[in-house]
Amino acid sequence: MSRLEEFRGIVSDDRLAEIYQRARKLYGKHIVHLNATYQGGGVAEILYSLVLLMNDVGIDTGWRILHGSQDFFDTTKKFHNALQGAPINLSKRKKDLYLEVNNNFSEFTHLDHDCVIIHDPQPLGLIRYYRKSQPWVWRCHIDLTKPHAELWDFLKGFILKYDELILSSEKYFKEELPVEQRLMLPAINPLSLKNKLLPDSTIKKYIEKAGIPTDKPIITQVSRLDPWKDPLGVLEVFKRVKEKIDCRLVFCYNIAGDDPEGVRIQRLVERKAKNLIEKGDVLFVIGNHEILVNSIQRFSDVIIQKSTKEGFCLAVTEALWKETPVVASNVGGIPAQIEDGKNGYLLKPKDLDGFAEKIIYLLKNPEESKIIGKEGKKTVKKRFLITRLLSDYLDMLNAVINGN
Amino acid sequence: MSRLEEFRGIVSDDRLAEIYQRARKLYGKHIVHLNATYQGGGVAEILYSLVLLMNDVGIDTGWRILHGSQDFFDTTKKFHNALQGAPINLSKRKKDLYLEVNNNFSEFTHLDHDCVIIHDPQPLGLIRYYRKSQPWVWRCHIDLTKPHAELWDFLKGFILKYDELILSSEKYFKEELPVEQRLMLPAINPLSLKNKLLPDSTIKKYIEKAGIPTDKPIITQVSRLDPWKDPLGVLEVFKRVKEKIDCRLVFCYNIAGDDPEGVRIQRLVERKAKNLIEKGDVLFVIGNHEILVNSIQRFSDVIIQKSTKEGFCLAVTEALWKETPVVASNVGGIPAQIEDGKNGYLLKPKDLDGFAEKIIYLLKNPEESKIIGKEGKKTVKKRFLITRLLSDYLDMLNAVINGN
Repeated sequence: MSRLEEFRGIVSDDRLAEIYQRARKLYGKHIVHLNATYQGGGVAEILYSLVLLMNDVGIDTGWRILHGSQDFFDTTKKFHNALQGAPINLSKRKKDLYLEVNNNFSEFTHLDHDCVIIHDPQPLGLIRYYRKSQPWVWRCHIDLTKPHAELWDFLKGFILKYDELILSSEKYFKEELPVEQRLMLPAINPLSLKNKLLPDSTIKKYIEKAGIPTDKPIITQVSRLDPWKDPLGVLEVFKRVKEKIDCRLVFCYNIAGDDPEGVRIQRLVERKAKNLIEKGDVLFVIGNHEILVNSIQRFSDVIIQKSTKEGFCLAVTEALWKETPVVASNVGGIPAQIEDGKNGYLLKPKDLDGFAEKIIYLLKNPEESKIIGKEGKKTVKKRFLITRLLSDYLDMLNAVINGN
Repeated sequence: MSRLEEFRGIVSDDRLAEIYQRARKLYGKHIVHLNATYQGGGVAEILYSLVLLMNDVGIDTGWRILHGSQDFFDTTKKFHNALQGAPINLSKRKKDLYLEVNNNFSEFTHLDHDCVIIHDPQPLGLIRYYRKSQPWVWRCHIDLTKPHAELWDFLKGFILKYDELILSSEKYFKEELPVEQRLMLPAINPLSLKNKLLPDSTIKKYIEKAGIPTDKPIITQVSRLDPWKDPLGVLEVFKRVKEKIDCRLVFCYNIAGDDPEGVRIQRLVERKAKNLIEKGDVLFVIGNHEILVNSIQRFSDVIIQKSTKEGFCLAVTEALWKETPVVASNVGGIPAQIEDGKNGYLLKPKDLDGFAEKIIYLLKNPEESKIIGKEGKKTVKKRFLITRLLSDYLDMLNAVINGN
């Protein structure tokens, strides 16, 4: 899992050789990634694989986690939502707390690296508390189509000090921002516990352990319980599907260290699905073991992704890789992954009937479903594996450190 | 909160000057602390204050967090319990997982420091994956009176490579272990949000926000929901007290990133206290905001600490500092803090009647209760403030780095 050579057979030798070549001008450089959490969410998963591979190809690459209080993470969760367009009361208290946590963290975090890569808004403000002596790069994983204006202006005060921004879609590029901007699509590690091929016996064991009965088709959404993932909408779609075909709905959700909102939303969905939950037709499964999530994604008949906003949406990539057909909203990075009707289905987030119709179609046509699943895997193999992302990072480092 | 000079008035100028002097031979040294979590538990709280103060006195002191999977933390939680005497099935799978996580973490954690300080068992094994080029110190916060023999032997393979062990009680010293052992009693930061003086209006605001009614006396245990904290025993004691005096019981608990057991135990207590919970006489309050915990400790009439095993027990120290009388088990570091009848009461963990009797006595005798509370604060001021601990760490660093 931590050696590039293990990707032989999945990725061509030419591609692997290219990666080793790009690393040569970076031997012995000392880089650090810094984000808000080790657990939960796609960013942490990408970083784990990426950081190990960067070390493997000869770059001393560290990974640090911001220290923050519960209050701080409550606040930055609001920042996150507001960057995706939600309202926020950007009080002085919130700004002060944001600055204080970043300032305190800087006091015990000594950065003498050749490049500092900051992920997402939580540690963005750190840059204010250092005398810059290396390039700083801000890697933003969030949908920036329409960020809250006042918050964006507050964050710009930090962003301007960065050497480069990395964004997940060209749609998020900001023309008015006089900072270099680079596109980098996220990716998955096909060898991780979350994505590797599993024997049927393992899958069955985990499905059973999770308490998921196997007598009916299973529709699953794998996501944090977050308003942008629209779990209530998923429930509505499921009700419509269930009128035609008896099946089950699984909410497979993560609890992340910086996600205090999850509990509240689960209660909300539980109230709306009371009867279905009692009958065992709607299930909540905590996806805190990667093999469990892997098993559920492989065992499900259809994966639904009814987000109203997304950065890129790795949950879709993971499902595509596993040849499970996906019915998803055409938001954020999802249309970059799914071509409607070819390797999955794309719908407007509000089109509940459309979602239900496509899911029913897939459940009723297993052969068609299989073909679509296979196309999904091809897409990921071509464009969304971690080796491609590693290569992108090496390009970026060569640009900001070596100027080429 | 991050400057030693802010302790003037609480700590004498002589003591502060001593600390500045001890730091002089350590100027510019680069030290790192490494533990399992930033959030939850006394270790993280101590480290936050300690690390900021160490930087303030001139030592470049970093703080890193081990990266582990849920599986890993489930396993190390079992290690933790087994070190305190619980049984464990020390399978090859558990050992392999422990080694794998430590090995992977070492690949992206580049330690070129002058001293590495490892906290608790989770990252203890890291040392195997480095070519040692500096002193390594293991700071163990756990009750080691009777560690599980097989696990202890497994861990000894790592411990032997360390230059020094720091333990919280002389009772935990291991004569047969050919490694330097040092006593360091933990401490609290009197200026932190958790411990600082609060205006009555703030306390009331937080008590109200937490949903704690103020019409009856309040007995509180502040602890993780962990079998060693014996929440079921607390409930039994409370029932006996309630036969004599109408009052309420508050379980103020932390949820820590590495504590998957909490939820299970809460369910257990909830079943046993069903009627009392419905009446509002037993309350669960998540103490995830430091000011909230501070408020509850200050507002409670009695703090109970019915642990059957403890490392040191900072929850007791915090209560003593706030002049709230404490009735506690005489285990672990608690008898090092409480002198029975003088600044609190000590009981055998199984003595339910004794616990109830002392609590009733304190509730019935507010003047006596006040005197005992004041004695508690004196004890902490003399021996358990973070400035004393900082001084101990400087001594340790002067010993292992400078040989004096």
